[in-house]
Amino acid sequence: MSDLIEQLEGVLDTGLIRGDAERAARARDTWMRSEMRREEGHLELPLAVAAPADTQQMSQVVEICRAHGVKMIARGGGSGVVGGVLASADSVVISTERMTGMRSLDSHNLLATFGAGTNGYEAEMLVQAEGLTIGNWPQSIELSTVGGWVATRASGQYSTAYGNTEDVVHSLKAVLPDGSIYRSRATPRASAGPDLRQLFLGGEGTMGIVTEVTFSLRPLPEPGVRQAFHFDDFEAGLEAIREVIRPGWRPPVVRLYDGRESWRHFRDQLPKGNAMLIFLHEGPPGLAPLQAAAAEKVCVSHGGVAAAADVVDAWFDSRNSVPSWEELLSQGVLADTIEVATDWTRLPALYKAVTEAISAVPGVIAATAHTSHSYRSGANLYFTFAAMPAERGDFVSTYDQCWRAAMEAAAEVGAGLAHHHGVGRVRRDWMAVELGETGLDMLRSIKRALDPNGLMNPGVLIGDDTP
Amino acid sequence: MSDLIEQLEGVLDTGLIRGDAERAARARDTWMRSEMRREEGHLELPLAVAAPADTQQMSQVVEICRAHGVKMIARGGGSGVVGGVLASADSVVISTERMTGMRSLDSHNLLATFGAGTNGYEAEMLVQAEGLTIGNWPQSIELSTVGGWVATRASGQYSTAYGNTEDVVHSLKAVLPDGSIYRSRATPRASAGPDLRQLFLGGEGTMGIVTEVTFSLRPLPEPGVRQAFHFDDFEAGLEAIREVIRPGWRPPVVRLYDGRESWRHFRDQLPKGNAMLIFLHEGPPGLAPLQAAAAEKVCVSHGGVAAAADVVDAWFDSRNSVPSWEELLSQGVLADTIEVATDWTRLPALYKAVTEAISAVPGVIAATAHTSHSYRSGANLYFTFAAMPAERGDFVSTYDQCWRAAMEAAAEVGAGLAHHHGVGRVRRDWMAVELGETGLDMLRSIKRALDPNGLMNPGVLIGDDTP
Repeated sequence: MSDLIEQLEGVLDTGLIRGDAERAARARDTWMRSEMRREEGHLELPLAVAAPADTQQMSQVVEICRAHGVKMIARGGGSGVVGGVLASADSVVISTERMTGMRSLDSHNLLATFGAGTNGYEAEMLVQAEGLTIGNWPQSIELSTVGGWVATRASGQYSTAYGNTEDVVHSLKAVLPDGSIYRSRATPRASAGPDLRQLFLGGEGTMGIVTEVTFSLRPLPEPGVRQAFHFDDFEAGLEAIREVIRPGWRPPVVRLYDGRESWRHFRDQLPKGNAMLIFLHEGPPGLAPLQAAAAEKVCVSHGGVAAAADVVDAWFDSRNSVPSWEELLSQGVLADTIEVATDWTRLPALYKAVTEAISAVPGVIAATAHTSHSYRSGANLYFTFAAMPAERGDFVSTYDQCWRAAMEAAAEVGAGLAHHHGVGRVRRDWMAVELGETGLDMLRSIKRALDPNGLMNPGVLIGDDTP
Repeated sequence: MSDLIEQLEGVLDTGLIRGDAERAARARDTWMRSEMRREEGHLELPLAVAAPADTQQMSQVVEICRAHGVKMIARGGGSGVVGGVLASADSVVISTERMTGMRSLDSHNLLATFGAGTNGYEAEMLVQAEGLTIGNWPQSIELSTVGGWVATRASGQYSTAYGNTEDVVHSLKAVLPDGSIYRSRATPRASAGPDLRQLFLGGEGTMGIVTEVTFSLRPLPEPGVRQAFHFDDFEAGLEAIREVIRPGWRPPVVRLYDGRESWRHFRDQLPKGNAMLIFLHEGPPGLAPLQAAAAEKVCVSHGGVAAAADVVDAWFDSRNSVPSWEELLSQGVLADTIEVATDWTRLPALYKAVTEAISAVPGVIAATAHTSHSYRSGANLYFTFAAMPAERGDFVSTYDQCWRAAMEAAAEVGAGLAHHHGVGRVRRDWMAVELGETGLDMLRSIKRALDPNGLMNPGVLIGDDTP
């Protein structure tokens, strides 16, 4: 491998990172299972971390790795939670950390181009300085990169109005497994064959590595209208959301918490067991109050009781604060979140099935949910679970049981098994259910066609290795 | 081939169509060039037309054709205008004409599933009967099928608010080149790897044949507000549209005609040379008047003069009426339309470059344009040209010269070369420009992976044969 290192160093100079601590810091993402395995002493370090400065260097790095038959693990902010990044000792981690910054801003056409490694919050602030917004607010926004958003199809907290990552990406540039550079046509819309951008959106580093992203922006709207209602139960809240969305209203933020989460977050603001629904309404002048009035009417008709708007303020203030896995594990607690989606009719059954299935796993102390992304045909459910297994040795197996219980229950209901965190390693065994055997075969065929030696992020999406 | 016919007949019975007139009627789409070639005596008939009744039969038909190494030409309504359907004497046309009707309607979740061969207008009327709408109104709606909409990424006249076909498709079923059946997960949204539906959206029958389509519906809105303004020039109208779209207003219909088209359609309503802009505003209660007031303010600020709302009524009454190619050819006229797209900044240059380039082709008598699909970052331009070559023998070469002039001029400006009619055969020589060499290689690789013998619609998108 000394030849590999030498060649990479020739291209990257200080962009080739070889220190133990530096490699350890980039060897994985924020998957709870990786954290537990690391605590058990399992952590493989990659051969090196390659951090190209631009697309051209990325192309050269990929070409060198390919020629050496070395696995390539693309890494952005490392904030993924499904095991999409997990280095092996025979791999090179390819980090976008030096590919940062805004390449261009075009206010007239509402376009901004960033290096793939640009931090999401920094990207948003750079366009906000010009009175514009990307409008994509994943909870990880302060940690994640815009390239990672593409690779995982990240969803933002404002998605109900502004869409998910695939809806705000205008064009992109990527390096394919053979080192060639793909650049999608810069056009508002095309009917020019299959949309090839869609291979990188959700590709999780298996089909190529995204190096530049151009977003279709919006002007920053006026301050919006914040609104909150609580309902006797989760189901009544879901029905209220459906009726707000149905005629065409699109509040950017629509979040409904089940009784337990509502009590956790808003206990001074509602009776125990009630479900809190919060809205942010935004839009061109005049739209937000009109929409808020319509939403209020619907909520009241479903028994919703208005709560103080500072409920929403409280959510805004703390929306991206989550405890680290290390903090939880140090208290003997393992936890994770699982996001799935289905139509309005099945949502109550999905909620019941998954919370019950997870709760039945020995050691589980909580299984709760909220919905945070609404569509005409249905919505997501975002489950949070926590467990305190009696034995430290049972942590990984408890974790695996919780995921299996949730996936099987969701599959039984007929739900979509992956809303927005991606597949990584945690969901790959359910891809045959999600895509069907034919779909999975298609994905395998395409992967083989683009990456015949399976060097880009093997083990993710369709991998067969076991971490 | 008698073995092939026998096997197909065994599966299809009367669904195997062999008469000369029937084969001739299904041998091609509505490409002007095919019509001219037919008049010159060039028309190949397929071996047979296979019309399966359902997905299972489609799978069997594909499997039989594959086993015999016979080319498969998928055909829906035959209303495509880019040569996406053109049978050869060694091919079987696979028609979706018997796969019609609504399979299910779910008003609660706003979903409706149709056989791929269902006529677009019939599909829309079936859901309108329940107070719902698909909201996709391609000009071909009375001729085209919902499967054809998917295969070509058709755009509807209401796309500015309701999106293009890819935005209203919830899920789909398709038969792959090896006969296997793919069904996408029924979920409002997924982050489960690359979105495989996108291979069929715009696949033009090269990656598989769509057999069922489920749409995400909307409730039928209240009657909307119709509005029209005319401007001193096309450019002022474009700037008005940009400013209406920018803050987030989304009128379903936004159409601006250049001076010549405005005079052609609305000559009693505006001074000669002025550009007419028409809007339809729709939405949940209260939205349309608010939006119309905002649009009026913008238009007036750009020198727009209000025109009578019956201008819009006139458009609605005649919006899908176009002369047939045969009618035009019988008058010695050849004509076609070319839709491209670019950002707001380049639209005036694109308009100028393409109209001038086409006008410079000997025999051309008109080259005009309108825009009909607006996005945050730009819009489409829809060019119409007509020519009267002196010699009948010059028709095909004049046609080819007009297309070449338009594509080269659009490429020079940096525009997207295909907005919504698709690629077919007329644009395939420009796919290397549109997708880039790397993109075209990706498309070829994926095609080979799914259809190693190249049997599905060869010659389309990436084909190398010459019609």
